[in-house]
Amino acid sequence: MEDLELLTELLTDKKYSQVRTFLLSQNAIDIAYLLTEIPPEKLLLVFRLLPKELAAEVFVEMDSDQQMLLIKGFNDTELHAVFNELFVDDTVDIIEEMPANVVKRILAGTDAETRKSINEILNYPDDSAGSIMTVEFVHLKPAMTIHQALSVIKKTGVDKETIYTCYVTDPNRHLIGVVTVKDMLLSEENATIGDIMEENIIHAHTLDDREEVANLFREYGLMALPVVDNEDRLVGIVTYDDAIDVLVEESDEDAQVMAAITPSAKPYLKTGVFDIWKNRIPWLLIMMLSATFTGMIISGFESALAAQVALTAFIPMLMSTGGNTGSQSSTTVIRGLSMGEVEFSDIFRVIWKEIRVGVLCAVTLAGANFIKIWLFDILLLKTEGLTLWVDAVVCITLALTVITAKLVGCTLPILAKKIKLDPAVMAAPFITTILDAVSLLIYFALASAILDL
Amino acid sequence: MEDLELLTELLTDKKYSQVRTFLLSQNAIDIAYLLTEIPPEKLLLVFRLLPKELAAEVFVEMDSDQQMLLIKGFNDTELHAVFNELFVDDTVDIIEEMPANVVKRILAGTDAETRKSINEILNYPDDSAGSIMTVEFVHLKPAMTIHQALSVIKKTGVDKETIYTCYVTDPNRHLIGVVTVKDMLLSEENATIGDIMEENIIHAHTLDDREEVANLFREYGLMALPVVDNEDRLVGIVTYDDAIDVLVEESDEDAQVMAAITPSAKPYLKTGVFDIWKNRIPWLLIMMLSATFTGMIISGFESALAAQVALTAFIPMLMSTGGNTGSQSSTTVIRGLSMGEVEFSDIFRVIWKEIRVGVLCAVTLAGANFIKIWLFDILLLKTEGLTLWVDAVVCITLALTVITAKLVGCTLPILAKKIKLDPAVMAAPFITTILDAVSLLIYFALASAILDL
Repeated sequence: MEDLELLTELLTDKKYSQVRTFLLSQNAIDIAYLLTEIPPEKLLLVFRLLPKELAAEVFVEMDSDQQMLLIKGFNDTELHAVFNELFVDDTVDIIEEMPANVVKRILAGTDAETRKSINEILNYPDDSAGSIMTVEFVHLKPAMTIHQALSVIKKTGVDKETIYTCYVTDPNRHLIGVVTVKDMLLSEENATIGDIMEENIIHAHTLDDREEVANLFREYGLMALPVVDNEDRLVGIVTYDDAIDVLVEESDEDAQVMAAITPSAKPYLKTGVFDIWKNRIPWLLIMMLSATFTGMIISGFESALAAQVALTAFIPMLMSTGGNTGSQSSTTVIRGLSMGEVEFSDIFRVIWKEIRVGVLCAVTLAGANFIKIWLFDILLLKTEGLTLWVDAVVCITLALTVITAKLVGCTLPILAKKIKLDPAVMAAPFITTILDAVSLLIYFALASAILDL
Repeated sequence: MEDLELLTELLTDKKYSQVRTFLLSQNAIDIAYLLTEIPPEKLLLVFRLLPKELAAEVFVEMDSDQQMLLIKGFNDTELHAVFNELFVDDTVDIIEEMPANVVKRILAGTDAETRKSINEILNYPDDSAGSIMTVEFVHLKPAMTIHQALSVIKKTGVDKETIYTCYVTDPNRHLIGVVTVKDMLLSEENATIGDIMEENIIHAHTLDDREEVANLFREYGLMALPVVDNEDRLVGIVTYDDAIDVLVEESDEDAQVMAAITPSAKPYLKTGVFDIWKNRIPWLLIMMLSATFTGMIISGFESALAAQVALTAFIPMLMSTGGNTGSQSSTTVIRGLSMGEVEFSDIFRVIWKEIRVGVLCAVTLAGANFIKIWLFDILLLKTEGLTLWVDAVVCITLALTVITAKLVGCTLPILAKKIKLDPAVMAAPFITTILDAVSLLIYFALASAILDL
């Protein structure tokens, strides 16, 4: 915050050379943050104070509204100067947010080869490994000596997203090995790349799911991962920073979907009220509608409830315990699925586990509840119409609801994933609605049977 | 799976040299996975087939039950051979899971300096930067030439967790710069480290929260982060793979806590039924108890409900809409807090935003519901006792509940964080209980006032 005040003061006083010196002492990400806070009409002016390379780094870190503002102000020379400094994957990220006329201006200034790479990456599906990869990596041949390989890095490294992991291919561009700069520095200079390269390579295919790719980074502690096409030819690499973004985005998306919100990657404080409303209201309407079915079930048993008024008071407890128990199971399974710990083939192990947990929980909850109603509501408060038979109906319902909840909660997300639906979407509207209805139906069926209503 | 079958077959046939050849073609993480699946009595035998360095790498990746099994079988020479190959932070992770007698055996074999580092790291609080850092980093002096620096890396690099980011200190061990191997390789060999080092350093303090440290990696795309003590002396570094683990663990923990589960880092399929039960049942009991309060509120208004039976059918809809609306807000705010996007100082911006979203949602939901009850329940089904006045009571309650839910849902997590409670814990038991009670109280107060009950 002090930085921002200093910058604002220098700008107001038009001390531009001091502005420049100040900005040079900051890193790109912090500058991008500071620039979101200054008046928009000063943005272009301040941006022009930055040296070319830093300007490009700052540009990548800005949000798309600001990038658009700058692009509008840029002349063609400035526009191409910025985009020539960018890595292809960053260019693609920016292009995806821009309207067509801006995209045309950007592409016009890039050379044919870059344009081709951009178009290729743009064509991969949004959630694929191809869409998050970069084509700028260090490419080595097995016959090179370490000394030669290091000169290749020195010559071409400045344009590569990472130099630390280098990729070795045969003449047909098939990936045959991986070698790190660490291995090169720690080996004899006259060894060849073929001698020291690792041939057992963890890799991904262009169309693999980006979440699965990101999980490989977590599992193997990778810094970069090669991506090959259908014919096993190396086409790009994914770096760890993009993998971190995917992991965080995906778990954020899971959390939003499970809370019945249409996922958005935009930070909350930067999202408009109307957009937040749009992301939340459809789900609330759907769930409100489905809750009216629960209401209809209750209406259908109105006469039973009128005959045994004590039954009504336990409805919220039964419904909420069912919902809570179910969401414990669904959350556990949804997280397991998205971390790759649970697969479809585990479905019977999961069900068997949840049945046993369900029985344990059912016995504990029903037991505790039976004693509580008996001691507190019947003996102490002497609640009218509340008999041990009613207590039994409530607690048997509770036990059956809990076991059903565990089963439904663990099964639906796995089935959803199998038919390529987002498992998280099962959590909020579907599972709770099903459980609400099931618990009430069990309740009224048991009440009718046992209490002779 | 094929790999496992092959290994099992080779073991059954006692073809140990082929087992060795097979294992050497695999990477450490996959070997560790394979070893969890073979019969425990063969574990030590297979482990002894691995060369020393690979054996240590595999050991780190195993789960603690298996590590314990191996340690029991190791003689002292083997034990020390394995632990001498490990990085200090990995040793600490293992020690934390072991019983005291095993820890003694492990520490007995390490040299005095390593033992000191281990004890230091063990002393940092569990959720601090100190607890996840490593002390094995490359240490350079500003006067070194790049050529000298590269020889330091060649000499000492094999024992360092990363060589790609090196740290420059003054004679008092204060951190004064950071230099990457990329910068070294791309600069003139006779430049000095002082010339090319970056002096504007993103760093953490030993006692900083590990989640905030991990967020720095995400924000700045870091590969490693230096950690300094109270006097700004460099004491260790955190590497990106540990930061990824923290990010995933923390979001996993958030998801569990929000689903009312005591968090556990153990994979679901490897957790016993009894442990799962223990992590889930206390919260279910608490929430069941709190739901009985809701039941008591309903009992208190039994005569009103008996006079206007139509009112009962809307209770589930009102309660669930309140809960769903509230959990949308709390999930959004909890995620924002843990990603560092929302701070305590934003509380009024958040409240103002949620009030506006709440009013929009309230108007939409209450409007839709009013029309639905009017057209469907009153005009079409001619439900007994359901008048436009009852409709009005339901919809005004709905609107007020929705606005309250948004307010409570966004405020409580921020306040929880302020008083150093986990914001996620607010979501499940507290917010839903409050909202259930509030919606019922509003409902019955309005019903009594408007319907003259």
